[in-house]
Amino acid sequence: MKLDHTAKGVFTIAATPFLPDGAVDTASIDRMTDFYHSCGVSGITILGMMGEAPKLDADESFSIARQVVRRSTVPIVVGVSAPGFAAMRSLAQSVMDAGAAAVMIAPPPSLRTDDQIVSYFAQAVAAIGPDIPWVLQDYPLVLSVQMTPKVIRQIVTDNPSCVMLKHEDWPGLEKISTLRVFQRDGSLRPISILCGNGGLFLDFELERGADGAMTGYAFPDMLVDVVNFYAQGNRDTAHDLFDAHLPLMRYEQQQGIGLAVRKYVLQKRGAIAHDTQRAPAGKLTPAARAEIDYLLARLALRDPRAAFATSTQAAEPDLPSTSNRSRHV
Amino acid sequence: MKLDHTAKGVFTIAATPFLPDGAVDTASIDRMTDFYHSCGVSGITILGMMGEAPKLDADESFSIARQVVRRSTVPIVVGVSAPGFAAMRSLAQSVMDAGAAAVMIAPPPSLRTDDQIVSYFAQAVAAIGPDIPWVLQDYPLVLSVQMTPKVIRQIVTDNPSCVMLKHEDWPGLEKISTLRVFQRDGSLRPISILCGNGGLFLDFELERGADGAMTGYAFPDMLVDVVNFYAQGNRDTAHDLFDAHLPLMRYEQQQGIGLAVRKYVLQKRGAIAHDTQRAPAGKLTPAARAEIDYLLARLALRDPRAAFATSTQAAEPDLPSTSNRSRHV
Amino acid sequence: MKLDHTAKGVFTIAATPFLPDGAVDTASIDRMTDFYHSCGVSGITILGMMGEAPKLDADESFSIARQVVRRSTVPIVVGVSAPGFAAMRSLAQSVMDAGAAAVMIAPPPSLRTDDQIVSYFAQAVAAIGPDIPWVLQDYPLVLSVQMTPKVIRQIVTDNPSCVMLKHEDWPGLEKISTLRVFQRDGSLRPISILCGNGGLFLDFELERGADGAMTGYAFPDMLVDVVNFYAQGNRDTAHDLFDAHLPLMRYEQQQGIGLAVRKYVLQKRGAIAHDTQRAPAGKLTPAARAEIDYLLARLALRDPRAAFATSTQAAEPDLPSTSNRSRHV
Amino acid sequence: MKLDHTAKGVFTIAATPFLPDGAVDTASIDRMTDFYHSCGVSGITILGMMGEAPKLDADESFSIARQVVRRSTVPIVVGVSAPGFAAMRSLAQSVMDAGAAAVMIAPPPSLRTDDQIVSYFAQAVAAIGPDIPWVLQDYPLVLSVQMTPKVIRQIVTDNPSCVMLKHEDWPGLEKISTLRVFQRDGSLRPISILCGNGGLFLDFELERGADGAMTGYAFPDMLVDVVNFYAQGNRDTAHDLFDAHLPLMRYEQQQGIGLAVRKYVLQKRGAIAHDTQRAPAGKLTPAARAEIDYLLARLALRDPRAAFATSTQAAEPDLPSTSNRSRHV
Repeated sequence: MKLDHTAKGVFTIAATPFLPDGAVDTASIDRMTDFYHSCGVSGITILGMMGEAPKLDADESFSIARQVVRRSTVPIVVGVSAPGFAAMRSLAQSVMDAGAAAVMIAPPPSLRTDDQIVSYFAQAVAAIGPDIPWVLQDYPLVLSVQMTPKVIRQIVTDNPSCVMLKHEDWPGLEKISTLRVFQRDGSLRPISILCGNGGLFLDFELERGADGAMTGYAFPDMLVDVVNFYAQGNRDTAHDLFDAHLPLMRYEQQQGIGLAVRKYVLQKRGAIAHDTQRAPAGKLTPAARAEIDYLLARLALRDPRAAFATSTQAAEPDLPSTSNRSRHV
Repeated sequence: MKLDHTAKGVFTIAATPFLPDGAVDTASIDRMTDFYHSCGVSGITILGMMGEAPKLDADESFSIARQVVRRSTVPIVVGVSAPGFAAMRSLAQSVMDAGAAAVMIAPPPSLRTDDQIVSYFAQAVAAIGPDIPWVLQDYPLVLSVQMTPKVIRQIVTDNPSCVMLKHEDWPGLEKISTLRVFQRDGSLRPISILCGNGGLFLDFELERGADGAMTGYAFPDMLVDVVNFYAQGNRDTAHDLFDAHLPLMRYEQQQGIGLAVRKYVLQKRGAIAHDTQRAPAGKLTPAARAEIDYLLARLALRDPRAAFATSTQAAEPDLPSTSNRSRHV
Repeated sequence: MKLDHTAKGVFTIAATPFLPDGAVDTASIDRMTDFYHSCGVSGITILGMMGEAPKLDADESFSIARQVVRRSTVPIVVGVSAPGFAAMRSLAQSVMDAGAAAVMIAPPPSLRTDDQIVSYFAQAVAAIGPDIPWVLQDYPLVLSVQMTPKVIRQIVTDNPSCVMLKHEDWPGLEKISTLRVFQRDGSLRPISILCGNGGLFLDFELERGADGAMTGYAFPDMLVDVVNFYAQGNRDTAHDLFDAHLPLMRYEQQQGIGLAVRKYVLQKRGAIAHDTQRAPAGKLTPAARAEIDYLLARLALRDPRAAFATSTQAAEPDLPSTSNRSRHV
Repeated sequence: MKLDHTAKGVFTIAATPFLPDGAVDTASIDRMTDFYHSCGVSGITILGMMGEAPKLDADESFSIARQVVRRSTVPIVVGVSAPGFAAMRSLAQSVMDAGAAAVMIAPPPSLRTDDQIVSYFAQAVAAIGPDIPWVLQDYPLVLSVQMTPKVIRQIVTDNPSCVMLKHEDWPGLEKISTLRVFQRDGSLRPISILCGNGGLFLDFELERGADGAMTGYAFPDMLVDVVNFYAQGNRDTAHDLFDAHLPLMRYEQQQGIGLAVRKYVLQKRGAIAHDTQRAPAGKLTPAARAEIDYLLARLALRDPRAAFATSTQAAEPDLPSTSNRSRHV
C-alpha cells in the first residue's frame, strides 16, 4: 500500500543492525522490526542517515529493504538519497517493486538558491518516475540546505507524488505554522508533516500542526504516547511524559555520537543484538556509557519502560501510557 | 583585577539592552548588572554574540563596556572578536584600560586547518599585546571552526596570556575529559574551562571537569545553584534542578531566535526594561510567546524563581536553592 | 557628484598602502591615486576586500576615504560592508559627507535563501538611509552567497538607491546576459554592471553587456584599453591585448596571495612605495617573485607598459593603446 | 601492471560518453580511449568528477571501467570515491581484478581537522585493503577539505599504498615546493605528483617539481607537449604553447559548465560522438558555444590542432610539437 498525505503518528527511523564483524545482522533486522511494531509505530523509515545507509553497498541496501518490507505490518519508507540519479532510480524502483510504501529524498549539500532546490527535486522525480510517493527531507543542520516554506510549497505543488515532509529544520516551529497557513489559504495542498530532530521539539510541533514524528529516538513507544495524549487533548500529560525523557533525548541528539547512543539503548532494550556501527563511527567512551546509564536510571523513576535489564528493583511508575502495548519485554 | 586560570563558577553572557527605538538603554545596563550580581554570578561577559556586539559601532561598544565595568563588583570579560586585528586591538586596549578583567576572542569562520587556527591566535595576541588575559572561544556550531584538543593545547602553550577556554563544542563532553587528561599528564598547563551552548550539557560538563558555565540562559541563578550543588557533592539534587529547567533551556537554545527568548524572559524577570533587538533580529510570534509562558508556568511548579509577574497564585516550591539570594524581585 | 546607473568604464579597486611597520602610508595614497588617474580609470573603489578594509580600525577607514576623495578627480566608491548595520551606517554617512560618490555593500556569508538575501539589503538600506547610492557586490566564490538574477532584480527593484552591480559570480557570463534580457523586457530598470573576478573574463563580459570592469588588476590601463577597443568595435585587438595579459592575470587571481601579487606589481610600477600588507597576509616566496618577474618580462615583449624598472632594454611594442596616457613613469 | 610513485607525464581525466537519450555510449568509449592514446598520454583516469561518476549506478561504473581497461594500452586509474566504504571497497576490488592500475580517493566534504582527514584515509585503506595502489585527490575548491603539506606527508607515511598525489589545491605552487623539500630532507618518501585544476598553472607547476598533469582539458596532446618541452629544457617554448591555450583553458575552468565545454570540444575533435551529459548538467547557451568557437578559431592561428572541422582553410602552424602523433584526425 502506497503512502499518502493522510499519514500520521510515529514513523520510527530504523537503525541498521550489524554483527560485531561489521556484516549485516539479518536476525536482528526481524527482531528490531518486531520491536518497532510492539512500540505502536505507524510506519518505519529505513536506510536514512541514522540507518548508516551510505555505509552499505547497493546489494546490501536492497536486501535490507526487502527483508524489512516482508516482515513489517506497517508501511515502510526507504531512504534513496544518492550522489546521483542513476543510483537513486535503481534503488527506488527495486524497493517499490518489493513492496515499500514510499521513498525519502534529501537534497545534496551543494544546493543554495531557491531555484536550485526546486530544480533538484524536479530532476529527482523525473529520475524515479512520477508514480512513486516520496517524502521530502528538510534537515538544514546536517545538510546545509535551507528551504523556506515558499520553496517547500513550490516543490509540493510541482510534484504531485510528494506526500510528506520530514521536517527537521531548527528552529522550525514557525515553519510548521506557516505551511499549515498555506494549506488553509488554499495555496498548498494537504501534506503530511512528520518531525525529526530527535523529537526534541515534538511537544510543541504537534501543537503547531505536525501529524507526528519521524525520528529514531530509542523510545518510539514514548513518542507514540505523546502523540496520542495530544490527540486526546491531554496536553499537560503529554508534556509530563515528554519532559521526563528530555534529558536523555537531549543527550542522544549530540551530532556525531547520537547514533552510538541510540544503538546502545536499543541493544539494552533488546531490539538489536549488538550496538556495532560500521566505520566511520562515533564511539561511546566508558564515561559516556555511564552517563547514559545514569540518565536511564533517572528516567526509570518516572517511566517504567526505562526500567529494563540494568534495573533489578522495580521502579514505581508515575507516568500513564496510552495503551498497554508499550511495554517491550 | 585581571582574570587568571583559577576562575570558576558562572560567568553570565550579558545581553545588550536597547530602547524601543534601537538606542542603547543605559538605565537598563545598570539594572541588568545588578540583576546578575543578585544571581550570584562570579563574572559577566559582555559584547559576545548574544550581546549583539556586531550591531554596535566602535563608540557604543566602548561606552557599554565602560559602564558595566564601573558598575560591576565581579570581573568583566569583553568580547573583542573583529574582522581585523586593528579593531580588535583598539577595543581590547581601551576596555582593559577601563578596568576589564580579560577579553574573549573567537576564530573567524574561514579558518580550516590546524595550522591556520594556531597561527590566527598567535597573530591576535601579537595585535593586542602579551599582557592582556584572554578567553579562547570554541564554538564550532556557529563559527564552523573545529579545534581539536591538541590544537587547543598548542594555542594555550604558545600563548601564556590565554587563561580560559569558553567551551561550546557540540558534542563536547569528551573534549573536556581529554583536556583534563592533558593537564594531568603534564602536557597542558592549568586552564579554566567554562561551558557555553546555552548550558544544555552543564549537568555532565561539571562531572567531566569543567569549572562552571559561561552562557546567557535567563536563569543564571539556577546555573549558580547547579554548580554549587555539584561542588557540595549533591549530584542528584543538581540534576533535579537542571532537569526542571531543561524544557526551557532547550527552547532557548534554538539558533536564530534564542536571543529573543532570552530577552523576553529577562524582561519578565525585571532585568531589562525592553526586549528590543537591533536588526537583524529573530522575532517571537504570539505562538512562541505563549509557548514560553507555558514553559515558565510549568517551571514555576518546580522552581519558584520562575513564578514571577505572570503568575498570581503562589506555586509550591519543590526545589532547594544553594542560597537565599537567588530570588530576584 | 553621486554615482548613478550610467557609470561605465573601469573603476579600479584600490590597494591600501602601508609603511613597512604597518602604519598607513599616507604619501603613497596620493601617489597611488595619481597613478590610477594616469591609467585613465573612470572611478576608484576603496576599502574593498583588496583594500584590506577589515584590517583597518574605524578612524583609519575614514581618514583614508577622506584623503582619496580630496585627491581624486574621478568618483570614489567606498566599501562599507561591516558585521553590523551600526558600523555600516557610521562609515557610509561620514564618507558621503566627505564627498564620496557611492558606497558598496557585500552580503554576509551566512545568508542562504533568496528571502534572506533580499531582506538583508532592505535592512542595510534602512540603516544607511535611502539617499546614498550603492553598489551591490555579488561574489559567491569568496562570500558563499549565491544570488540568482531574479534575486538581483528584486533587490534593485526594492531599492531605488542601488545603482550598480559589481558582478563577480563565477561562472557569470550567462548572469550578465539574463540581467540585460530583464532590462529589455522591462522587468528590470537600467543598472550599471561592472565586472570583477580579477578581470579574468572581461573579454567576454563586455560582449555580454557589461559596462566595464571593477577590479584591482595591477594594469588598470590595460583594462581601460580593452574597454575602449570594444567600444570602438575592435574585437580582435581587444582580445589580443587581453590575451597578452592573461598569464599574469591568471597568476594574480590565486585566492589568498592575489593581493601580494598586486601590491608587488604596483610597487614595481611606482604606484606605491612598499608592498607591505597587514596581517593576516599571503606572502610571496622568492620562487613566486621570480615567477612574476618572468611573467612581466614575457608580457613586456607584447605590451611596453610591462617594460618598467626591471627591464633596461626597450621592448618592441607590439600592441596598440587606445591613448597615449597609459604609460606610467 | 600496478601504478607506483615513478608515474609521470599526462594522465588525462576521461569523460564518460553518453548517447542523446542518456544511455552509456559504449562505442564512444573505445573511440575516446583511442583518441587519448593518440594524444600521447601516459595514463587515463576514469570515473572522476569530470567523468560524471556520481551519475552512474554501480553496474554502469564497473562496465565502463572494464571496457576502458581492456581497450587501453596505458595504465588506468579509477575513481572510487563514495559516500561510504562498502561501496568504495566493492568498486575498488572489482576494477583491480579487471586490470586497473590504481584507484583514486577524494575526501568527503565534511572533514575539517587534520586528524579527521588522516583518520579518514586510514579507514579507506582498511576498507579497500593494503595492496591496492591509490591516488590521493586534494581539491579544496570543490571538496572544501584543506590538507596541509604536513597532513599529506602523514597520509603518505601512514599508508604505503598511496603512490600519487592528484594536486589541485588553489593556490598550490608552494604546496608542491614544500612537498619536494620534505622529500629532500628525508621526511617524505618519493611520491608522484600530477596536477589538476584544469592545467591552469601547469606552466609553473612543472618548475616547482610536479611530475606532470592529471586533468581533463580537451587538448591533452598540448599538455603532453608542454611536459615534454620542460623535460627537454625548452622553458620559453613550453610557455609559448601553454599561453596560446590559456584563453580556452580559462574558459573551460568555469565551475559548473566546465564539463560542458570539454565535451563540446571533445566532440568537435572527434573523440566522442555526442556531448550529452546526464542531469544535473551545466548547459551551454548559443552565446557560450559561439564564444568557444571564437576561442578555437583564435587558437587555431597558433596551434594547428585547433584547426579542425569548423575550419576549412589551413591555419599556419606557428607552434612546434614534440612529436608528430599529436594531430588527431
